[in-house]
Amino acid sequence: MQKNLIDLLAAIAGNDAVLAGDSAAPYCTDWRGRYSGKALAVVFPSNTTQVAEVVKLCAANQITIVPQGGNTSLCGGSVPLPQGAQIVLNLSRMNQVRAIDPTNYTMTVEAGCKLDYVREAAEKCNRFFPLGLTATQKFCEIGGNLSTNAGGINVLRYGNARDLVLGLEVVLPDGRIWNGLRSLRKDNSGYDLKHLFMGAEGTLGIITAAVLKLYPRPQAEATACVAVRDPAAAVALLSHLRASCGDRISAFEIISRSSLDLVFRHMPDTREPFTEKHGWIVITQLADVLSAPLDEALRGALRSFGAGIAEFDISSDKDHAERWWKLRKNISEAQKREGISIKHDVSVPISRVADFIARADTALQNAFPGIRIVAFGHMGDGNIHYNISMPDAAQNKSFLKQQEGAVNKLVYAAVGELNGSISAEHGLGQLKRDAIRAYKDPLEMELMRTVKQAIDPHGLMNPGKVL
Amino acid sequence: MQKNLIDLLAAIAGNDAVLAGDSAAPYCTDWRGRYSGKALAVVFPSNTTQVAEVVKLCAANQITIVPQGGNTSLCGGSVPLPQGAQIVLNLSRMNQVRAIDPTNYTMTVEAGCKLDYVREAAEKCNRFFPLGLTATQKFCEIGGNLSTNAGGINVLRYGNARDLVLGLEVVLPDGRIWNGLRSLRKDNSGYDLKHLFMGAEGTLGIITAAVLKLYPRPQAEATACVAVRDPAAAVALLSHLRASCGDRISAFEIISRSSLDLVFRHMPDTREPFTEKHGWIVITQLADVLSAPLDEALRGALRSFGAGIAEFDISSDKDHAERWWKLRKNISEAQKREGISIKHDVSVPISRVADFIARADTALQNAFPGIRIVAFGHMGDGNIHYNISMPDAAQNKSFLKQQEGAVNKLVYAAVGELNGSISAEHGLGQLKRDAIRAYKDPLEMELMRTVKQAIDPHGLMNPGKVL
Repeated sequence: MQKNLIDLLAAIAGNDAVLAGDSAAPYCTDWRGRYSGKALAVVFPSNTTQVAEVVKLCAANQITIVPQGGNTSLCGGSVPLPQGAQIVLNLSRMNQVRAIDPTNYTMTVEAGCKLDYVREAAEKCNRFFPLGLTATQKFCEIGGNLSTNAGGINVLRYGNARDLVLGLEVVLPDGRIWNGLRSLRKDNSGYDLKHLFMGAEGTLGIITAAVLKLYPRPQAEATACVAVRDPAAAVALLSHLRASCGDRISAFEIISRSSLDLVFRHMPDTREPFTEKHGWIVITQLADVLSAPLDEALRGALRSFGAGIAEFDISSDKDHAERWWKLRKNISEAQKREGISIKHDVSVPISRVADFIARADTALQNAFPGIRIVAFGHMGDGNIHYNISMPDAAQNKSFLKQQEGAVNKLVYAAVGELNGSISAEHGLGQLKRDAIRAYKDPLEMELMRTVKQAIDPHGLMNPGKVL
Repeated sequence: MQKNLIDLLAAIAGNDAVLAGDSAAPYCTDWRGRYSGKALAVVFPSNTTQVAEVVKLCAANQITIVPQGGNTSLCGGSVPLPQGAQIVLNLSRMNQVRAIDPTNYTMTVEAGCKLDYVREAAEKCNRFFPLGLTATQKFCEIGGNLSTNAGGINVLRYGNARDLVLGLEVVLPDGRIWNGLRSLRKDNSGYDLKHLFMGAEGTLGIITAAVLKLYPRPQAEATACVAVRDPAAAVALLSHLRASCGDRISAFEIISRSSLDLVFRHMPDTREPFTEKHGWIVITQLADVLSAPLDEALRGALRSFGAGIAEFDISSDKDHAERWWKLRKNISEAQKREGISIKHDVSVPISRVADFIARADTALQNAFPGIRIVAFGHMGDGNIHYNISMPDAAQNKSFLKQQEGAVNKLVYAAVGELNGSISAEHGLGQLKRDAIRAYKDPLEMELMRTVKQAIDPHGLMNPGKVL
């Protein structure tokens, strides 16, 4: 079968568009190196018709398909399973911007366009595409961003990836092409099917193209670094800033002392933002399409907040602000240099973020005295990256392997008590496929299976992921 | 059965919560008086458990259900069919605000809360709920707004109703309750089921409660009345204003001369906005949470636009601006006084609005010389209300009855050529249930039926609507 399959795939997509054996391996291991699988072949179709033909071929032979973009999933969503009976359908060759309509503030892009390229294409037309994933936007592709409903730092202003989409083109599990590439702001002519495919992590079909919303380009920016008394003060500050500055707030990130210390230890060119060491800092950014400076509005809003702020500094100079952003952007890399850690990507209502941190901290310190907690993230969305390791890096590997289940249980319990989510932005993939069953209402899981069964009755699309 | 059914419904919801016969009639005729049906009974449950019990009773007896809120559907979506074998399940008694969390900018409301009440409850906490439907917000209920994905005049800034929702509670067609009342800004833990139920017009389940997004309250407003050369100038002006004023633009409405003339003829206290009579005017509004005046920003943006504007006037005085808004808000009522007309609620990409008006006008004038076209609406969303009548009101009734099909065909053809929608914001209901089949991709219709069959396999929920 495999030889025959490769010939058939090559007949559809071309000889140079099919990989197997060793050359397929890079597409079978995930971004973090945690998941490795095997594939019968990796195929790189160049257009939607080829994608449809590949899917039809697989459907006829009951071969399951792993859709793949830039393969930057953080939860093993975009690599094949170890059994090796699947094909990887990589969209990277479908990398054309099909149309830009600056007057409609929309662009039509193919799934394989890299996120950076989408952003640049918008800028060339004096427009702004707001999805931003600082760690991966050079590598990830828009089809994957939409399939996983990607988040990032601008969500509090512009929404998640699904909120940036007006229309989709999808190859269904039987190989038929649904052309839903409408670019309408209002369309109440039946069920909104596009939302089914976004966030489904490729388990219901393959997104091959999308109509994206564009925005006017911001002309002025101001950034503040704020030392806050504690996470509760940060929660109140965000609420206050929204009321006083509105939609101008385009980022609001929180960083704990433990995160800062890691960055200072491992990353060059980073330094304390204030003379005094503070327990928690917030980096927040205002942006506006008007070119009038935003410093004064931001200063006024921060000054009127009161006792929860220890000190703050404001800059509208990009380089100056970047020094603060470096503290935020380098946390993951600093952690990697420190060794293994147990990472969480959780969300709770914004008003409960401080509550969550307090509950989870207490539970963990009680169970594992002295454990190190590195909390930071998108507080503006109630989305905290909450990572745990041993203070002594040498102990990490064995301890964490044994205790990962116990640690997760405590963190997820705090999430559950506050009606939160154990996956805020990274998705489920393989990583949380089992865990989610314990935390989600069984009726909701059943509804998800009902939808899966209806759209993909033979289970051909990305099995072993999500549900 | 009917006597028995009424007893059983009364046992669930109380004796005073069931109507039948003549007293049920007001709930069986639609808002415009175009659709009348019959119901075995109308039941008014007070809480979600009662809704679930009613649905279980109906499911056990294969009685179909028409979910109903304020019964303000403009397409016959919320009334029973003429056959009389259904029950109307009216949500109006479920009218509690369950919770408000100003810090999280969310509120949890029951389906039967009137839209005006939801807006007022938000205001009491110094927050803003942006969904606004000037004609009906005193009567319509939030459950219906979400089930029909309502639009209105603030969509260009805040999105449609579905964009204002973080979580839902839904009674499924088998009577089980799905509690999806999460209030999270980010949650990628599986399929986003809430989008299935919004815009489904009650055909997949009954929305009983929702977590709504709130926004900071705008503190400053400025409104402009702008005489534009033609619709193409209006299209370009909107694009220019977005680039220069950004998200401050909270409304952008276009009004044709024919619409203005109708208003002046029938509505007291209305007058020409300018000394000269212009063919098209635009009313646009900026709003901001900062209290600094917006007049200058708006004036500057309009002045820099160029030749497409004949003249304009700006005001930040509410009463003054209301004189302009009256021209827009009174068009429907003025039309009603003039007699019957064929109404359309269509959308195209914003960049194609002028194109649509030109194509549809030409086609109609060719087919029916002298026919009167009243075009106006939410240009900021590409959503035009495009209504047609005879210039002599006396001829209207017989002519339009005969020609409605032919008129619709021409208008829908122009919509189709521009990849638009024949229902922008009002939904399909009974009115466009047949028409949509001719205009939507058969594969998309099939996908909709697949979803319907999966979620409501016995077809109990609002049959005869949508699909």
